[in-house]
Amino acid sequence: MARRTGRRPGNPDTREAILAAAREAFAERGFDQASIRAIAAAAGVDPALVHHYFGTKDQLFLAAMNSPIDPGELIPRVWNGDPDAVGERLVGAFLGIWDSPAGTAAVALLRSAVSNDWTARLLREFMLTQVMRPMVKAAELDPAEAALRVPLVASQLVGLAMVRYIIKVEPFASAPTGALVAAVGPTIQRYLTDELPGAFDHLR
Amino acid sequence: MARRTGRRPGNPDTREAILAAAREAFAERGFDQASIRAIAAAAGVDPALVHHYFGTKDQLFLAAMNSPIDPGELIPRVWNGDPDAVGERLVGAFLGIWDSPAGTAAVALLRSAVSNDWTARLLREFMLTQVMRPMVKAAELDPAEAALRVPLVASQLVGLAMVRYIIKVEPFASAPTGALVAAVGPTIQRYLTDELPGAFDHLR
Repeated sequence: MARRTGRRPGNPDTREAILAAAREAFAERGFDQASIRAIAAAAGVDPALVHHYFGTKDQLFLAAMNSPIDPGELIPRVWNGDPDAVGERLVGAFLGIWDSPAGTAAVALLRSAVSNDWTARLLREFMLTQVMRPMVKAAELDPAEAALRVPLVASQLVGLAMVRYIIKVEPFASAPTGALVAAVGPTIQRYLTDELPGAFDHLR
Repeated sequence: MARRTGRRPGNPDTREAILAAAREAFAERGFDQASIRAIAAAAGVDPALVHHYFGTKDQLFLAAMNSPIDPGELIPRVWNGDPDAVGERLVGAFLGIWDSPAGTAAVALLRSAVSNDWTARLLREFMLTQVMRPMVKAAELDPAEAALRVPLVASQLVGLAMVRYIIKVEPFASAPTGALVAAVGPTIQRYLTDELPGAFDHLR
């Protein structure tokens, strides 16, 4: 998680109470319906303290998820450059996270989402609000099409993480990053930018 | 699992003892090194009884994994037809399993593989011996390339199952099967049959 350096860590018990209340609120009500005010009330603190400890609602959500990254920062960076190589840059950035020290948190998050309905709900909200929205904006996607395109991208990336970092199928698990970027980059590029004939018939 | 109708169910305790010994042997030693003889000895039964209850070593493995399908049967069937539509048929068959009553067992298997290193080892052996081998044979793949191509296919299919059936991102989770076949079929086709420039450089 990108933690703002200027922000005070605060009392650990209070922080944890706020994060627990936030997890419950985001899972129960969804990101948009969950309010900082209600989360603060559930944790027995003033809303200003929540902002003081965690910043914006997005930042609180990333902290509550123990997310190793802030997709709202990462995604616009990936879009910066040759538009035909967005897919390759996205795969490279994604594998870079898993291969970094943050990869441990990513494994824990995916494990928890799979074994626990409650974490799955949080991860679903995370994908919809923290990944889908910046991606729709960066790629200038049609919102109706994006509801299929972004989960397609997510499916390929999540599956890549599963087979390489969790199930660890060799020699795939130790193949060089460049080989996977070359193989999977065009898939991601196609899901984001190609016409995908037949995929949107049910929307018309 | 495809259970042979002619086979006797046998004593439930004996069956479970054989399955437990099989799981341990397949996870510890791998499919090829695990012998029916050693599994029978660990379960305290005669090897002939293992064959009598479960059939071949492949069939014992499928039973031990509680696998909802036998890929050795499914894969050759999928290859039967227009070679340019193998990708679409494979995605259709895969989604068909998850949407059938067998989908519950598939969800349980994936959940268990993610939360449990031991099940992950079994699933890895399963992919290598039960999925990779029939796929290499059916698609007539170069074995060195297959070690990348088949896990690429697996990554897309496993990720599809994760996003659609476990994390359940809407409206993706309830999109018609045909939309996903149209979108993902060409990805699978490309992983199996296209050149994938740059993906095999490390093998040369």
